[in-house]
Amino acid sequence: MSYTICFIGAGNLATHLSTIFHKKGFNVSQIYSRSEKSAKLLAEKLKTQYTNSFKNIDSNADIYFIALKDSAVEDVLSEINFNNKLVVHCSGSLPLSILEKHSENIGVFYPLQTFSKNRALDFSSIPIFIEANFVANENSLHEIASKISSSVSVLNSGKRKLLHISAVFANNFVNYFYSISSEILRSQNISFDVLKPLILETAKKVQEMQPEKAQTGPAVRFDENIISAHLEELEHFNGYQELYNSISKSIFEYHSKLK
Amino acid sequence: MSYTICFIGAGNLATHLSTIFHKKGFNVSQIYSRSEKSAKLLAEKLKTQYTNSFKNIDSNADIYFIALKDSAVEDVLSEINFNNKLVVHCSGSLPLSILEKHSENIGVFYPLQTFSKNRALDFSSIPIFIEANFVANENSLHEIASKISSSVSVLNSGKRKLLHISAVFANNFVNYFYSISSEILRSQNISFDVLKPLILETAKKVQEMQPEKAQTGPAVRFDENIISAHLEELEHFNGYQELYNSISKSIFEYHSKLK
Repeated sequence: MSYTICFIGAGNLATHLSTIFHKKGFNVSQIYSRSEKSAKLLAEKLKTQYTNSFKNIDSNADIYFIALKDSAVEDVLSEINFNNKLVVHCSGSLPLSILEKHSENIGVFYPLQTFSKNRALDFSSIPIFIEANFVANENSLHEIASKISSSVSVLNSGKRKLLHISAVFANNFVNYFYSISSEILRSQNISFDVLKPLILETAKKVQEMQPEKAQTGPAVRFDENIISAHLEELEHFNGYQELYNSISKSIFEYHSKLK
Repeated sequence: MSYTICFIGAGNLATHLSTIFHKKGFNVSQIYSRSEKSAKLLAEKLKTQYTNSFKNIDSNADIYFIALKDSAVEDVLSEINFNNKLVVHCSGSLPLSILEKHSENIGVFYPLQTFSKNRALDFSSIPIFIEANFVANENSLHEIASKISSSVSVLNSGKRKLLHISAVFANNFVNYFYSISSEILRSQNISFDVLKPLILETAKKVQEMQPEKAQTGPAVRFDENIISAHLEELEHFNGYQELYNSISKSIFEYHSKLK
């Protein structure tokens, strides 16, 4: 079956998802965004309609994809009449139940990846986690997800929340540490470029081995000379000394338990 | 000039370095390791000599490469008579001066990468940082480093220490967060495989954009609903709640200052 899909949102995720749906032959009938400019930009790329007004939202779509930041979802939901069509959100942390008041057919479609507007992604390897209130809705989402990815799983809201937390560590927090590294290097007039091969190899390593087994560095062997020398240097960096200290302790405790 | 190089150490770094030197035509004359088994294993790969006895260390080498963990370096140095030949350590954190008592010709050769015994690496892209007590020694190290890498820089001990700290954040701490993610997923019976595309994309993103600009997630926009929901879930994970909280605060403060 070919579905007609209306997108609520025109940010990074909405852009990537609607584009791949369009490429895979689904009918993306409309883009809604609070910002007319964003809605128009994305709609023109997909040669489809757009609106920035709730009352003009396409009432004939089969599925409504809510691709907004979490904090905006509830406000937007209460503004739209979905005529009990399938309404789907794309959030890792919001439960399915948040949609209950708004339609009799509800689901979740969570692609586990970091989306930036200008970076092309190979969707076929992105894991997609789905959930729905009825088997028929789950089947629809499974069919759609399978068209764009080879990794589709059904996952309930509770487990999805933990999955999202793990992604916060592996993506948000990791990226923040790249920022800290970059700031430390900048203070020494060293280009961030020198860290790029290390960053890439660190990520590639755990594609093949368990991260616990890949752990190296002063913290895992609790090399007090190096740790205290590093802490001394970090006095000049507001806040990073405490982070370095608490993470080093945590690494050491973690690996002491493994032994 | 072709140098004769004696390796003190047979661990991950010694294995990678001696192997690439051998491949590039340098004469690796001997491998020393406290463990005869490790010394033999590496020496056989390079079709060279080995010893586990300080008194049998090759006295005719041009350069001695000390590739040991930091805490072992000083003890080993005091056991060997280097006849004032060029003695080089490979540590990010140890200063050049640690070698002063042991030879009149000293240097540092620090390749910025994470080395695992069974992973092949493209050495040509690994940044190498050198330092020496005389220009002649610096020139020798520059010549050797340039044979194996296209990125060779002279860097003093003070700056190298900060470089090493930045690498601890970008590699050791990052890898630890991969471990935490893995543990959280394991508690939900979800395979770590699902995070691999996200981990790789996170690392690839900062090859092209500044990490500050790549930052996403609940902490940077201080989404209190998600953060407190996540903290509640992390109560069941010993220690990770505090880490999540302090890193989220640090991310928010960092990005508040950028605005």
